[in-house]
Amino acid sequence: MSSFGTIFRVTTYGESHCQSVGCIVDGVPPGMTLSEKDIQPQLSRRRPGQSKLSTPRNEKDKVHIQSGIENEKTLGTPIAMLIKNEDQRPNDYSEMKLYPRPSHADFTYSEKYGIRSSSGGGRASARETIGRVAAGAIAEKFLKQVDPKIEIVAFTSQIGEVKMNRDPFNPDFQNLLNTITRDKVDSIGFIRCPDLNIAGDMVKEIEKYRGQQDSIGGVVTCVVRNIPTGLGEPCFDKLEALLAHAMLSIPASKGFEIGSGFVGVSVPGSKHNDLFYYDEEKKRLRTKTNNSGGIQGGISNGENIYFSVAFKSTATISQEQHTATYDGKNGILAAKGRHDPAVTPRAVPIVEAMTALVLADALLIQKSREYGRSVVH
Amino acid sequence: MSSFGTIFRVTTYGESHCQSVGCIVDGVPPGMTLSEKDIQPQLSRRRPGQSKLSTPRNEKDKVHIQSGIENEKTLGTPIAMLIKNEDQRPNDYSEMKLYPRPSHADFTYSEKYGIRSSSGGGRASARETIGRVAAGAIAEKFLKQVDPKIEIVAFTSQIGEVKMNRDPFNPDFQNLLNTITRDKVDSIGFIRCPDLNIAGDMVKEIEKYRGQQDSIGGVVTCVVRNIPTGLGEPCFDKLEALLAHAMLSIPASKGFEIGSGFVGVSVPGSKHNDLFYYDEEKKRLRTKTNNSGGIQGGISNGENIYFSVAFKSTATISQEQHTATYDGKNGILAAKGRHDPAVTPRAVPIVEAMTALVLADALLIQKSREYGRSVVH
Amino acid sequence: MSSFGTIFRVTTYGESHCQSVGCIVDGVPPGMTLSEKDIQPQLSRRRPGQSKLSTPRNEKDKVHIQSGIENEKTLGTPIAMLIKNEDQRPNDYSEMKLYPRPSHADFTYSEKYGIRSSSGGGRASARETIGRVAAGAIAEKFLKQVDPKIEIVAFTSQIGEVKMNRDPFNPDFQNLLNTITRDKVDSIGFIRCPDLNIAGDMVKEIEKYRGQQDSIGGVVTCVVRNIPTGLGEPCFDKLEALLAHAMLSIPASKGFEIGSGFVGVSVPGSKHNDLFYYDEEKKRLRTKTNNSGGIQGGISNGENIYFSVAFKSTATISQEQHTATYDGKNGILAAKGRHDPAVTPRAVPIVEAMTALVLADALLIQKSREYGRSVVH
Amino acid sequence: MSSFGTIFRVTTYGESHCQSVGCIVDGVPPGMTLSEKDIQPQLSRRRPGQSKLSTPRNEKDKVHIQSGIENEKTLGTPIAMLIKNEDQRPNDYSEMKLYPRPSHADFTYSEKYGIRSSSGGGRASARETIGRVAAGAIAEKFLKQVDPKIEIVAFTSQIGEVKMNRDPFNPDFQNLLNTITRDKVDSIGFIRCPDLNIAGDMVKEIEKYRGQQDSIGGVVTCVVRNIPTGLGEPCFDKLEALLAHAMLSIPASKGFEIGSGFVGVSVPGSKHNDLFYYDEEKKRLRTKTNNSGGIQGGISNGENIYFSVAFKSTATISQEQHTATYDGKNGILAAKGRHDPAVTPRAVPIVEAMTALVLADALLIQKSREYGRSVVH
Repeated sequence: MSSFGTIFRVTTYGESHCQSVGCIVDGVPPGMTLSEKDIQPQLSRRRPGQSKLSTPRNEKDKVHIQSGIENEKTLGTPIAMLIKNEDQRPNDYSEMKLYPRPSHADFTYSEKYGIRSSSGGGRASARETIGRVAAGAIAEKFLKQVDPKIEIVAFTSQIGEVKMNRDPFNPDFQNLLNTITRDKVDSIGFIRCPDLNIAGDMVKEIEKYRGQQDSIGGVVTCVVRNIPTGLGEPCFDKLEALLAHAMLSIPASKGFEIGSGFVGVSVPGSKHNDLFYYDEEKKRLRTKTNNSGGIQGGISNGENIYFSVAFKSTATISQEQHTATYDGKNGILAAKGRHDPAVTPRAVPIVEAMTALVLADALLIQKSREYGRSVVH
Repeated sequence: MSSFGTIFRVTTYGESHCQSVGCIVDGVPPGMTLSEKDIQPQLSRRRPGQSKLSTPRNEKDKVHIQSGIENEKTLGTPIAMLIKNEDQRPNDYSEMKLYPRPSHADFTYSEKYGIRSSSGGGRASARETIGRVAAGAIAEKFLKQVDPKIEIVAFTSQIGEVKMNRDPFNPDFQNLLNTITRDKVDSIGFIRCPDLNIAGDMVKEIEKYRGQQDSIGGVVTCVVRNIPTGLGEPCFDKLEALLAHAMLSIPASKGFEIGSGFVGVSVPGSKHNDLFYYDEEKKRLRTKTNNSGGIQGGISNGENIYFSVAFKSTATISQEQHTATYDGKNGILAAKGRHDPAVTPRAVPIVEAMTALVLADALLIQKSREYGRSVVH
Repeated sequence: MSSFGTIFRVTTYGESHCQSVGCIVDGVPPGMTLSEKDIQPQLSRRRPGQSKLSTPRNEKDKVHIQSGIENEKTLGTPIAMLIKNEDQRPNDYSEMKLYPRPSHADFTYSEKYGIRSSSGGGRASARETIGRVAAGAIAEKFLKQVDPKIEIVAFTSQIGEVKMNRDPFNPDFQNLLNTITRDKVDSIGFIRCPDLNIAGDMVKEIEKYRGQQDSIGGVVTCVVRNIPTGLGEPCFDKLEALLAHAMLSIPASKGFEIGSGFVGVSVPGSKHNDLFYYDEEKKRLRTKTNNSGGIQGGISNGENIYFSVAFKSTATISQEQHTATYDGKNGILAAKGRHDPAVTPRAVPIVEAMTALVLADALLIQKSREYGRSVVH
Repeated sequence: MSSFGTIFRVTTYGESHCQSVGCIVDGVPPGMTLSEKDIQPQLSRRRPGQSKLSTPRNEKDKVHIQSGIENEKTLGTPIAMLIKNEDQRPNDYSEMKLYPRPSHADFTYSEKYGIRSSSGGGRASARETIGRVAAGAIAEKFLKQVDPKIEIVAFTSQIGEVKMNRDPFNPDFQNLLNTITRDKVDSIGFIRCPDLNIAGDMVKEIEKYRGQQDSIGGVVTCVVRNIPTGLGEPCFDKLEALLAHAMLSIPASKGFEIGSGFVGVSVPGSKHNDLFYYDEEKKRLRTKTNNSGGIQGGISNGENIYFSVAFKSTATISQEQHTATYDGKNGILAAKGRHDPAVTPRAVPIVEAMTALVLADALLIQKSREYGRSVVH
């Protein structure tokens, strides 16, 4: 459904061609300094039209806080936010009344709901993610107040065949995870790959597919630094299970791997196991390596949490496709309008937002656990 | 926490060294013929000790239904099931009082709960999965009554470096997904790889690591055939998000990919998109290819749902490991006892169980949606 | 928190002095004809200022649908609705910065959230109920499409000492429950008591307390007719438990009784038990009496569901009260502005809305149960 | 369904004639000293057969903890408990195969589930409450560790026409609420009324109806002392809403009122409002009166929480009843066996258990809120 989280919970609404999109964020701690200025930056990072690489739809995506805040302080009550839909151009979607777009959600929404919205796939629209990003910005601001050293940084690690080395057993990759910042990610432009050379190749890869009226997928990698130990609720709400749930709920995502992921399955335990040592500074055990990706047994161990999310190529392309109409007649569909040949870079703030939502909720639940524990000991 | 599902919901309990493990399954449709004979087979497939490849702990794992059934018919009330813990050998775990096992849950459970169970990681034990498998057997029996053609078949597709070709764009792989049966999977022995040659290599791979007192990971691939269209609840409870949640909640899992997964990100939309055609037999649109893995926009489209789950190498190994005690002193840990060098084949029925739980719940919710839709049209 | 329901779920937001109040309604069946015209009537019934009996704050409370609807048809996606806050007069609340209003939520909100909104009690405001009423109007429209004979009618059965005879063993009362309509309730004016004589006395009762700058409580009784059998989810989500939860979540409510309620405890089983007979028309068992109030064992039995909800006297009064400031200093508080001396009549549409929300959700869940049952038999 | 609570959550199972009844309690704080000795007393208070006033079924109801505890310390993992069903006498229920018992759940269970258990109403059995009481004992032990002064005491305040004065504006009643203890309640025997004279009349009232093979209802009043401020989650999960939900989920309950309840509706605000004063000892505001019943705006204010729950007369009576069979034929039912003429006194520990479950969960959630608040200020 449209709600996510237990104690810190977002509920989103809105599709492409309605009045507005937005969300209600419930459970935000009271007394937090918060205004639209805290939320707009991630919304702006999410929106298209910032460079020639993405769709020219010029959405302004200005957030309007409706409730839950007075004098820039949160009240502890639900914070509703809305972002108006402005540049709708419903005419561009005319053929979609005849054809379900291949690999889009048009057909399945029609099967599930028995009705077709003018945009085809109802909420299976990039605009649906606006509510997530707005809510995630609040979650992240809260996490920063828990510890300013908590950082959530996502970046584009692959576009098509062009990929960074993200082998978890590669020290350079681990070093990157230790040091990458959001500023660094943005400094290279909208592609959001922190390696200048690879970023250039990624841009070329996207341009190649754009020239062919085609599209291409990619991978977003995300790291969380300085998160406390103890987050995650075994057995079914292990922290990696919540992260996987969150990531696979993002449109177009097809895969999730944490820590050593799919590469790690062929590494024997003797090499894969993260051995312990005592960290004098943190006054607790830490691990010499971090193939676990910061989570063991479903619970954070205080090391970097890192994971990657696969995004398939955009379904809507202008190339002709030999497909069938809703009525079952064979025909040729070529989507009108200009379409984003690669949504992966725009997924970066969405991955960050969903990560922040998972962690804020897990942290608040764990603090309740810690309280209980402190009482009974 | 320990519950999973909304309308069809399982709650599990139990760790290695307590009286019993088990679960309560709530929301099972009433009037279903059900007895322990329906549940025991998957429990027996899950249990170790069936071949030289797995641990010799000879758990009998006999299920005892406590409630919710009279005269072998379900009542619609919660079905509680318990399986006694018999072969506990707590002495084998003696060093674990000193050392948190590297990459196991001992340290994180200690951090989260502030107490250490005798088995170290509390519920981060293979025995925790018994309740899942028992509940999944009921979910699967229900799905079979919805349509006997619904099939959930998982198999070992990789052990260490030995892997089947699971490229989704490979017709042989898609053909395998169309035809593989649970009988076929079991016919080749406990390794549960349906390719005889590769299965042999997998066994050798495991033996190699066993000989080195080491362990190795693997991948389980699962296919669901003949599931109806319309399952999954956008936006946050997309069907793939629920499956990812379910799979990443299984102990030792590190990754999930559905349909084209991580491979698909480098395939352009023009090739990746699943074009439609009209299926005269099913009287609805189907797709010529199935790179989406049976789910589009978070909703099942009626094609095969297939996905893979990565399992890391077993954390508990008998090799010496240079690590640290809970108290922060450097030392050497070599786990006593005999340990499973590769849990992947045993994960096969667990993956099937979690899949059945996700689908039974999603199906029941969708039937409520369909009812609502039928009323208002 | 701010969400209610499982399959048909509302999430509300907003307090007195923010931009807007409203809600997101998730799980509304798709294809339903719906527009603002369906929602406005109950909102208008809820709003104050309609007669001299209630507060003169002239809220217009016009609903703006944001999403989930195209061409007046629901899409199955979340329906967001907002109602602007217009007539805010924050100055009226100036003393409340010093004094927590006795028996209002000012003190407890301050204790829980550690921050004070300008209106004192945050969401403990009559305006919070707008989102409930808007959502309830959608739920009710859905129920009407399930069966046009389903009716939810609430009315004022007591104001102060003036009360209708609502003894469940009184045939006149049962007859009233069988026949009362919303039109009849509204025909007697804003007091919403269907007995003309008693209504007049109730108005006098309110005027008496208004004249004394005081306030008075009351009781709302509600009946639901023609609801199907089978609704409610034992054991913890019995239908009466969900109704009680819903009713006690309405501001100022202090009690709930269903069927024979508190009166029935002194009636022996031989008289209290509802004996069965066969109804040729409905082709099923019915009960000769209905002391159970339409629910037995937590499940609807097809008879009228009826219950009463107690509302205390309004906390905010203009009379001087000898109380203490937040800082603990004794002093005298006399609330400025004009305050509603009796909110009970305005609670009528709120009780109806919460009832509709409970029933729409319970019905959709039960339809999922019935599907499961039909499959396995 | 069969689960209750968010962070501290119980899931129950079992009906009259199955192997066992019990529950899984998830979210119990780790490190708490706990054994069956902590749970058995409330189970024994709940069980029938302790005096001539209740049914002679001699259930032993011995609890067996299955998991979640080692060396009498909780692990933080789910605690499963089972209590065997021993004295089942299914033959006593033979006519119930023909007749749905009037005002019992036999008919509605049959309608909902389409199957009839041998005991008729499935889980609508007094034995269903065993799991609640076992879980409540753990919740209460936790609350006692939070503050040993927290006390939850319920008592029988009415049987049939015999009632204690529970007018909330009566100082004697408020004084009773301030001082009543569980020992005092039990000292007067199984009737559990703390007023010796009234208790005697209550016993006579029950004996009168027993002599007539009839039954009678009653009221249980409960007080909670020394609970912290801040508990409850507006708007839908107000503390009184959760309590109402919990109480109306107990079999045979028909009403709930908190604080001034139904009596209070006719008391004007000027008398009803609880004025504030500063309590030097507690260093916070308190109220001079407590007509609110310890909750304002859905949040605890630190005063006594008190409420009453109405229980109807037992449905199963041995008197002849002119009713109809499931098949719709008129006939006479006289229930065989010995039946409890008044369950109200046995409801006392059940009310306490459900109260403890609500409060433990609300407290743990509030501690998470307080943490969030402390961070952002």
